[in-house]
Amino acid sequence: MTYQPPVRDYAFLLREVLGLEQYAALPAFADASMDTVDQILEEAGRFTAEVLAPLNGVGDKEGCHWSPDFTVTTPTGFKEAYAQLVEGGWPALGADPAFGGQGLPYVVSLAFSEMSSSANMAFSMYPGLTHGAYSAIHAAGTDEQKALYLPKLASFEWGGTMNLTEPQCGTDLGLLRTKAAPQPDGTYKISGQKIWISSGEHDLTPNIVHLVLARIEGAPAGTRGISLFIVPKFIPDKDGAPGVRNSVKCLGLEEKMGIHGNATCVISHEEATGWLIGEENRGLAIMFIMMNEARLGVGMQGIAQAEAAYQAAAEFAKDRLQGRSLTGPKNPDGPADPIIVHPDVRRMLMEARAIVEGGRCFLAWTALHGDLAAASPDESVRQKGRDYMALMTPVLKGFLTDRGFNVCSDAMQVHGGAGFTEHLPVSQYLRDCRIALIYEGTNGVQALDLVGRKLAAEGGRGVSAFFAELDAFVADNAADETLKPFTEGLAKAKAELQEATFWLMQNGLANPDNAGAASTDYMHLFGYVALAYMWGLMAKAAQAKVGAGDADPFYGRKLTVGRYYFARVLPQTAAHLAKLKAGAETLMALPAEAF
Amino acid sequence: MTYQPPVRDYAFLLREVLGLEQYAALPAFADASMDTVDQILEEAGRFTAEVLAPLNGVGDKEGCHWSPDFTVTTPTGFKEAYAQLVEGGWPALGADPAFGGQGLPYVVSLAFSEMSSSANMAFSMYPGLTHGAYSAIHAAGTDEQKALYLPKLASFEWGGTMNLTEPQCGTDLGLLRTKAAPQPDGTYKISGQKIWISSGEHDLTPNIVHLVLARIEGAPAGTRGISLFIVPKFIPDKDGAPGVRNSVKCLGLEEKMGIHGNATCVISHEEATGWLIGEENRGLAIMFIMMNEARLGVGMQGIAQAEAAYQAAAEFAKDRLQGRSLTGPKNPDGPADPIIVHPDVRRMLMEARAIVEGGRCFLAWTALHGDLAAASPDESVRQKGRDYMALMTPVLKGFLTDRGFNVCSDAMQVHGGAGFTEHLPVSQYLRDCRIALIYEGTNGVQALDLVGRKLAAEGGRGVSAFFAELDAFVADNAADETLKPFTEGLAKAKAELQEATFWLMQNGLANPDNAGAASTDYMHLFGYVALAYMWGLMAKAAQAKVGAGDADPFYGRKLTVGRYYFARVLPQTAAHLAKLKAGAETLMALPAEAF
Repeated sequence: MTYQPPVRDYAFLLREVLGLEQYAALPAFADASMDTVDQILEEAGRFTAEVLAPLNGVGDKEGCHWSPDFTVTTPTGFKEAYAQLVEGGWPALGADPAFGGQGLPYVVSLAFSEMSSSANMAFSMYPGLTHGAYSAIHAAGTDEQKALYLPKLASFEWGGTMNLTEPQCGTDLGLLRTKAAPQPDGTYKISGQKIWISSGEHDLTPNIVHLVLARIEGAPAGTRGISLFIVPKFIPDKDGAPGVRNSVKCLGLEEKMGIHGNATCVISHEEATGWLIGEENRGLAIMFIMMNEARLGVGMQGIAQAEAAYQAAAEFAKDRLQGRSLTGPKNPDGPADPIIVHPDVRRMLMEARAIVEGGRCFLAWTALHGDLAAASPDESVRQKGRDYMALMTPVLKGFLTDRGFNVCSDAMQVHGGAGFTEHLPVSQYLRDCRIALIYEGTNGVQALDLVGRKLAAEGGRGVSAFFAELDAFVADNAADETLKPFTEGLAKAKAELQEATFWLMQNGLANPDNAGAASTDYMHLFGYVALAYMWGLMAKAAQAKVGAGDADPFYGRKLTVGRYYFARVLPQTAAHLAKLKAGAETLMALPAEAF
Repeated sequence: MTYQPPVRDYAFLLREVLGLEQYAALPAFADASMDTVDQILEEAGRFTAEVLAPLNGVGDKEGCHWSPDFTVTTPTGFKEAYAQLVEGGWPALGADPAFGGQGLPYVVSLAFSEMSSSANMAFSMYPGLTHGAYSAIHAAGTDEQKALYLPKLASFEWGGTMNLTEPQCGTDLGLLRTKAAPQPDGTYKISGQKIWISSGEHDLTPNIVHLVLARIEGAPAGTRGISLFIVPKFIPDKDGAPGVRNSVKCLGLEEKMGIHGNATCVISHEEATGWLIGEENRGLAIMFIMMNEARLGVGMQGIAQAEAAYQAAAEFAKDRLQGRSLTGPKNPDGPADPIIVHPDVRRMLMEARAIVEGGRCFLAWTALHGDLAAASPDESVRQKGRDYMALMTPVLKGFLTDRGFNVCSDAMQVHGGAGFTEHLPVSQYLRDCRIALIYEGTNGVQALDLVGRKLAAEGGRGVSAFFAELDAFVADNAADETLKPFTEGLAKAKAELQEATFWLMQNGLANPDNAGAASTDYMHLFGYVALAYMWGLMAKAAQAKVGAGDADPFYGRKLTVGRYYFARVLPQTAAHLAKLKAGAETLMALPAEAF
């Protein structure tokens, strides 16, 4: 089974749904003609399918190995593949040309990220975390820090990490204990233990740049006293090459349910030398630059694993002969029909398609808003881009990973008993995918971020704009008979989301527990409505082709999957609305000791 | 963390909800006074928590080991624990006194099974499969076969297995190839390879009795030519002791995502000596005796893993300090509040309680109907018992494992990052639980069994009786104000299930794909309604105590969890109804090559 990169689907999204070429006048998009993009997609597909995918099972079975000299060895082949990644210039796709990058829009580099993650999630986390470190330094570093680190990080010549979690603090970073002692030379001595540090130590790069949250001596308690530091594994020498070994080391690896190929490290800082990045006590704000980017990336991982699991399930369902179709034999000369004839197998495959293709569009659409937030000359477009990025990030992370995991589980189900064995890849997809619901803020934390912060931000400007955009789409296309299932379904679902939003405004203020109790259902309701809009956009683009007589079956199939989404996925919204309107009462009624 | 057996909950179900003592006049119940039952529950709790639970993680980490001499070694401690199991007389609980059993009702032995499975699912599958073999021989064996095998199986002195699956056939047993060649002495030579045989080879018992499906030479193709054979690992000698080694051997073990402590074997029959059980070519009917019992047991496993995972999550949520309550600090002297103060954490714990306690009641209620089907002097009661057992089995298996897996996943979510590591038990619960959705017929097969066979059986007699029972409960209790949330919610949900049933009758006949497309949503809808009825029954029993001034907080808490079920779980029915009514059209529209 070979991974089939969704090259065609991305080309459709970028060219026909999002209309990338309309932005050609913007500098960031100047080099992103669709011809270039088509080529990048092809090459990305080839690299991920041929180089990364064959190592996915190897990484799962071998895992990473820690040695008592505090070094970590990655699985067989990872080092060579990483070298090819760097050599191919893939890391530079989205990076700033000022630091050696190609400066392509985020929405384009996203395609490569998804393909990498589908092909080999554990591997792709090494460059993924590096990109996070790049972004934080790019956003908040001094010119000197940028000059020193960004070219190495943009090219992925060096690795990067995020050092947040400590044994006593994950979600609640206010409890952070790692200390930073100021030194006369302007550096800091960092001391403390960090856990669950993805890509924290490995043999892929000659240096690793840790971005570390720590509390400067005398800083306020809680989240207002946290600063961010650059702590390189090897302190760069005068020429910017890895110099003196810093006193930061990996004390061991975590045994995990999945992503075995990625080193999840306990990292000990023992008076390690660190450099403050940004202002004192403003570390969390900078960390959230990385975090928000990472959250979108995690939502993408949910979809990427779902895509890979779907492909495995579809192949199995077409090959495995078992039973006969309810409507008469479809493979009369064989001993049985392929199981894809069974409606319940179809249901799982169609659900996968509806979620994956809709989710991919949602990711790309949001990423494009991120690009416009940075690149548009029009402040109202930039503002909308910022608002949407902020609003959609928790939904992308929480909703897409939750649905993605469900798709992976369905994909295992399509396999029957074979799926539970480790001979086929689907168990790994399920196990790897599971972390995406947890890290970079659990999905519950995402839901609370959405309901508690993002909805009300700027007086609800983001969500109001989104509702207006949905209304406009429905109004603009209401007269188109061919789009009726889409516009009518979207209008109904949007009304439910609006009802839920009003309910939250009324009841969340009266009792904050009502907002907390409603948060996960609200996030899912939001996600289903967002995907309904995406399916509306995709249906419109596909219908335009079909209406113009385009014979490519791609478009008709896209419309069919879209109709499936409206008929058999979207009705879930009603349940979420009813549940969230039930409020916090029964939920909070028991005393803690009753559990 | 120690497993806390649900002794109190079972006592409540058996004494107050199901009123076990009203059946005291029936022979099968004569020895099941509530005093005896209370004692059994206590002892069962002690044995499973003290002996089996400590070996659960050991089994997961060590797994089973196969040797080139075709032997299999179980994890450290399993052999000693198995000896204690046999010594304690646990296996005999539900077995026929004629063969050394205690003859207690199924509904009582179920409690021990659930506790065993929560404490150590992989271990409990060894006796579980043995019980299946016992039941098949008890139902269809000759007197000689019964005398030879049943005492050994009833005591679990010997193990038992089900040998069904072959590489080319799982669900579709008609494709079975294993051959049986009749011998002049009345035995058969069995030849063929079986895969995924749980407990197929191990070191726990001196003998293993395989029940093997095979096709007698010259028998018809398909399912009508399959017979069932007893193939003992060691052929019993004159004294009934293990004698000559039979030519059945384990060629290897399956690597699996979970249940590592259970040996999943490739079993090769190489002209092994077998004895026909029951009539020629009627093997499937007998195998389904085992299978139906096994399916209820698998539904129980879903709930058992959910219970264990819930307990781990609840403990974690009470201990882990992180963040503050939305309504002000609840642990003001500590660095943070325990995370159980967060509504979204509560949501996951309450959902777990609602599913586990409701599911347990559903299992016990059905098992009691199974007991009455066998033991009642009243043919109408026996008939209803048989009808309900047939109707509910696929729902118990499919719905409870699906929801149970979801509870395990939520329990991991409560743990945050710690849950994804293998230091805490929740990953194992999730991984172990996952097989329950697959084996003994995937949940999709259960749904099709429900919709395609069970609903229409005897002119729909079972489902009609169930609807009438729900109506009667609602009517009988409508006047009770304290039960209003329960009776009103049940009436509404039952109406949805009835609507779905009518839809199926009308549309399933016109196009069988409509039935297939609706099957999983229908099964879930059925499951939610069944649990609503269970919560109605439990609420009524609890309310009676509360109304009578009983101060035990158990009853008030039970009512709270029940109200949660109606407010925040049951609304899911509307989504299932809407989805299934969408029919097969969009689901079957794509050609197979489009996947």
